[in-house]
Amino acid sequence: MFAVTILGNNSAVPAFDRHPTSQVLTMPARSFLIDCGEGTQIQLINYKVRRSRISHIFISHLHGDHYFGLIGLINSFALLGRQQDLTIVAPEPLQQIIEMQLRVADTKLCFNLSFVTIKESGLLLNLDDVEVSCFRTDHRIKCYGFVFKEVRNPRRLNIEKVKEQHIPVTFYNSLQSGKDYTDENGNVIKNDVLTIAAPKGKVYAFCADTRYDERILTHIKDADMIYHETTYHDSLADIATARFHSTTRQAGKIAQLAGVKKLLIGHFSSKYDTLQEFETETREVFANTDLALEGVSYLLP
Amino acid sequence: MFAVTILGNNSAVPAFDRHPTSQVLTMPARSFLIDCGEGTQIQLINYKVRRSRISHIFISHLHGDHYFGLIGLINSFALLGRQQDLTIVAPEPLQQIIEMQLRVADTKLCFNLSFVTIKESGLLLNLDDVEVSCFRTDHRIKCYGFVFKEVRNPRRLNIEKVKEQHIPVTFYNSLQSGKDYTDENGNVIKNDVLTIAAPKGKVYAFCADTRYDERILTHIKDADMIYHETTYHDSLADIATARFHSTTRQAGKIAQLAGVKKLLIGHFSSKYDTLQEFETETREVFANTDLALEGVSYLLP
Repeated sequence: MFAVTILGNNSAVPAFDRHPTSQVLTMPARSFLIDCGEGTQIQLINYKVRRSRISHIFISHLHGDHYFGLIGLINSFALLGRQQDLTIVAPEPLQQIIEMQLRVADTKLCFNLSFVTIKESGLLLNLDDVEVSCFRTDHRIKCYGFVFKEVRNPRRLNIEKVKEQHIPVTFYNSLQSGKDYTDENGNVIKNDVLTIAAPKGKVYAFCADTRYDERILTHIKDADMIYHETTYHDSLADIATARFHSTTRQAGKIAQLAGVKKLLIGHFSSKYDTLQEFETETREVFANTDLALEGVSYLLP
Repeated sequence: MFAVTILGNNSAVPAFDRHPTSQVLTMPARSFLIDCGEGTQIQLINYKVRRSRISHIFISHLHGDHYFGLIGLINSFALLGRQQDLTIVAPEPLQQIIEMQLRVADTKLCFNLSFVTIKESGLLLNLDDVEVSCFRTDHRIKCYGFVFKEVRNPRRLNIEKVKEQHIPVTFYNSLQSGKDYTDENGNVIKNDVLTIAAPKGKVYAFCADTRYDERILTHIKDADMIYHETTYHDSLADIATARFHSTTRQAGKIAQLAGVKKLLIGHFSSKYDTLQEFETETREVFANTDLALEGVSYLLP
């Protein structure tokens, strides 16, 4: 499973029961939290997200609607006796802000909390199951999008052939990484007889807050799914540009140019009480668009 | 009107749809916010509290469940174009924490934000309509309770007599402050002929987070209403003491010894899913006790 669950889809000020930005990326072995607006810990409870699976929290930028819920979540993790390590990936000086707040409350954490400070675009994390990189977006303060690439064993065992050839279990890992097998008599069995090429890993890109900016295309090209903000309807393109945000049609254009399979849109301005028009306008440009609705999980296609 | 509206009544971790500590004290000319846990800005919307009336926000101590919602509220005030001055009254270093978060987001406030730093027990504010003082409570970190005393003109005009004696309107303020009136012929009309003693102003005391501590009695004596925490049932008195909190019967005892008219209890531990037992146990010691229920306004008796 590789899916994105929306916890908040509103822009800066909470309104109409919509919450500030937060999403959970669920993968087979772990989850990531992406942005953490105020109230995220309550949304995690509301939507029964398993908090112990969250190994990393990614913060795109230090506007409050993207991180004010982080200190409360960390605090609750401490009070609830969390054991699992937690890594925060964010621009400066979030580490200082969090550490200062923990210090003044004399909070003792019962789990390891570490920070990865984002300094520039590029590779951030290279884990067993997922690789994460970041890219700058065009926003009023320093802001980063994230690309999450699923890492799969490049080859899968053809278990029938493997058993037929009596390959020892201890050699399975080597087979998966592409090695040929040489038996005790020196006979070489080619790897492609014993394994099958695995399908490509899924790719999800979170494009954070941004103006329309084609420079991000190189980073999100051919992703299975992207999230792109649509703070405003198309009629407010001037305001969007002035405020470093995007419109419906602009998000659709980015998805189209990047050749992605699916587009999720969110970060809706509090001036709009309903969302239907966001969907309609964006789909005119890019048909496979979904509104990022709170509490809904979107599978990567 | 002098009333307290509860926005959050739970202890540290949000649970059972109960929120962390926050209350609004509504007075004729303004409102005060007392503590501001995460999600307070949403609770203010839910319960239709007029945010423009809030002139001051009092923070008892820097455990997160009492202030993590403050930065989000200030941020939303800025985004919504608030004009009214706002004063934050809190222990150090809250000012630094807030200012750092505003700075990194490059937030420009469109209203005056000022801070009063609490250094020790005593008088904090002396306003036209209300006087506020604070006192130390026995908690794990530096923590303060607050006493809000309504200031009334000491005497009210007996308007029939005032008109009968043709007292000029310009002298009304002097009458209210107790002065006798001397007419153009030098005749003295005694003040008590022209005015009536006003009833005493109402007094509300917020006792914050605290262990059972009789040292607070001197500060809250004879208040019309106090709020005292009851994190635990009576059976967990040992845990309450170890964690610098109070039980039901302890809160009742404080109310009784202080000779107050009414007791509000809150800061319920997340281990309890229902609240009835808090009320029952406390009322065994102090009959005029009410649970602080979210969304409910309690008039001072």
